[in-house]
Amino acid sequence: MALLISEPTLLLDQQKCLNNLDVMLAKCQKLGLDFRPHFKTHQSIQIGRWFRERGIHKIATSSLKMAEYFAQDNWTNITVAFPTNILEIDRINRLASKIELNLLIQSVDVLEFLNQQLQFPVNAYIQIDLGYGRTGFESDEMPTINRIVTAIRQTNKIRWKGFLGHAGHSYSAKNISEIRRVHQQALDQMQIIYDYFSARYSSLEISIGDTPCCSSMSSFGCASELRPGNFIFYDLTQQQIGACSLDQIAVAVACPVVAIHQKRHQIVVYGGGVHFSKEVLHHANYGPCYGLVVATTATGWGKPIPNCYVAKLSQEHGTVQCSEAFMQQIKIGDIIYILPVHSCMTANVLKSMQSLDGQQYTMMP
Amino acid sequence: MALLISEPTLLLDQQKCLNNLDVMLAKCQKLGLDFRPHFKTHQSIQIGRWFRERGIHKIATSSLKMAEYFAQDNWTNITVAFPTNILEIDRINRLASKIELNLLIQSVDVLEFLNQQLQFPVNAYIQIDLGYGRTGFESDEMPTINRIVTAIRQTNKIRWKGFLGHAGHSYSAKNISEIRRVHQQALDQMQIIYDYFSARYSSLEISIGDTPCCSSMSSFGCASELRPGNFIFYDLTQQQIGACSLDQIAVAVACPVVAIHQKRHQIVVYGGGVHFSKEVLHHANYGPCYGLVVATTATGWGKPIPNCYVAKLSQEHGTVQCSEAFMQQIKIGDIIYILPVHSCMTANVLKSMQSLDGQQYTMMP
Repeated sequence: MALLISEPTLLLDQQKCLNNLDVMLAKCQKLGLDFRPHFKTHQSIQIGRWFRERGIHKIATSSLKMAEYFAQDNWTNITVAFPTNILEIDRINRLASKIELNLLIQSVDVLEFLNQQLQFPVNAYIQIDLGYGRTGFESDEMPTINRIVTAIRQTNKIRWKGFLGHAGHSYSAKNISEIRRVHQQALDQMQIIYDYFSARYSSLEISIGDTPCCSSMSSFGCASELRPGNFIFYDLTQQQIGACSLDQIAVAVACPVVAIHQKRHQIVVYGGGVHFSKEVLHHANYGPCYGLVVATTATGWGKPIPNCYVAKLSQEHGTVQCSEAFMQQIKIGDIIYILPVHSCMTANVLKSMQSLDGQQYTMMP
Repeated sequence: MALLISEPTLLLDQQKCLNNLDVMLAKCQKLGLDFRPHFKTHQSIQIGRWFRERGIHKIATSSLKMAEYFAQDNWTNITVAFPTNILEIDRINRLASKIELNLLIQSVDVLEFLNQQLQFPVNAYIQIDLGYGRTGFESDEMPTINRIVTAIRQTNKIRWKGFLGHAGHSYSAKNISEIRRVHQQALDQMQIIYDYFSARYSSLEISIGDTPCCSSMSSFGCASELRPGNFIFYDLTQQQIGACSLDQIAVAVACPVVAIHQKRHQIVVYGGGVHFSKEVLHHANYGPCYGLVVATTATGWGKPIPNCYVAKLSQEHGTVQCSEAFMQQIKIGDIIYILPVHSCMTANVLKSMQSLDGQQYTMMP
């Protein structure tokens, strides 16, 4: 290790990260499913290349801007897994001129707009609500869905590929059996859609895949493609619901210790809401928790140190509640490592990473 | 208005912003207090210049990095209102070589480190805990404080200026009378310190100043300087506790509408946790609330639209619960304006602003 850290820094354990990638890829291969990793978690061209080196050529992003970022690095088949924002039609046309761009169609209005304004062909998926209740058509809106399918097929600029859904409510599961319930509900919804359309349309693509379900479930019904993102890093939220183990979490935030308060067993680190995000989880023993302190080892980090956790975050300060034993060994100027609650949000605010051998990873600005 | 918005954009009402500035400046002038605005909220060189044009020459920042950013724009007297991070000694020396740098001393260790490593003189404040319980010495730690004062005065690189505190628990107040209680507690703590030291040391500086207290209180005890930051924009948190009125909130997030769900009276906007931050408030009528939708007017925005609020945020999606009337007038591709819960955090993630006449404001990268 040759780490020179003086500010809050997102540390990347490359080996854990590659292992997470290989496990998910092997699962898709074993099940005969296409693997379209969602790049919103790492937002990094360098990490993206690890996927490409393993033969993966299709990705998902959460915005058109992020699609442009990865298109610059020669990703040529990108699904923007977000309702199409018609106000970005210029960006859509720029992207469609050079890559195979897959958009979501969430209404007749959007379809008509695209049909008028597209200068290059795109692919389209119709978004289905798998029970999350955020976006997408519900399975009982079949007449509308049917109307859109028919209308898409009458355009010459939009190639209809199939259906896409995201069972994001799996993130609020409390354990594996709740993940299983969410997953079954999602598959049931998609099956209704699939049964209705597959007889008429061959080679219908069905894209699903949140990290909790993709990590812990072993069959995916009518799906043809999995689209998880968070799995590349995982985090405490995923660990708490049983979607990963602690030693699969591939990122930690390194924070300088700036103040020590012996009396109340607290230390203050340089590392606040602008570094972690304010994502919180409710820990069985600690209550509201913004991160767990892990032991620093010769090669990275080890297990969480009992009774050491981030209890409070303000803009730049993190207040860490500590055990008596930890208090005795810590001093101002030390660096401590903290596992984040939600790695997507933490990476998004920190905007860069450093691997354990000191290599810098840039992210989308 | 010549706004071209296609993505989540932080809108700045320059008139409200300048009014907030002028009101706070007038208050300080009237009370004969130094005004050292905290620049962590706007993080913008352009907005900083509005302060300078009004004769303000001393500022506070929340990190050394932010101090460097403003030093580039010729701010020459900066207090880093954060415990001194000794790992950034190189940055401290770079700053101290060209500006009057004011650091916080939070322990004997930090003092000794600085005394050995400083290449240029700095000023120092000793941080006092005003009841917030985050950082600083408590008023009953007088022997330690006294020891540090004596030790600082024996160095030739560190000029001791006085004491600094932050009553950050005022943000959790529920109303003006709770702010008043926090304020009185803070002043009482500082007075104990002041009484102990002022007899021996003349021209002792006392710096306090969180936005709730600075906005709503009218006397500041032994303080010589006020140091608020959030007041430049304000936000729903400040409005809820009574520190500002709705029409003083100087920023809103403009978000494209990307999906409409008539049945559940919801729209989905492009605008999620990566744009608002995940800061939440508990609204008396709506429960958890991540922002309020305001009416769009010819010159900016007006009042909140009843029963229209951001009920959920994921990475890029905002789910807005809407009134029947609002649902009827909204369509995909519209832009809606949303007042943020915590403007410091929202500005920090959006990283740039646009005024209502279309001018771009850059922020610290």
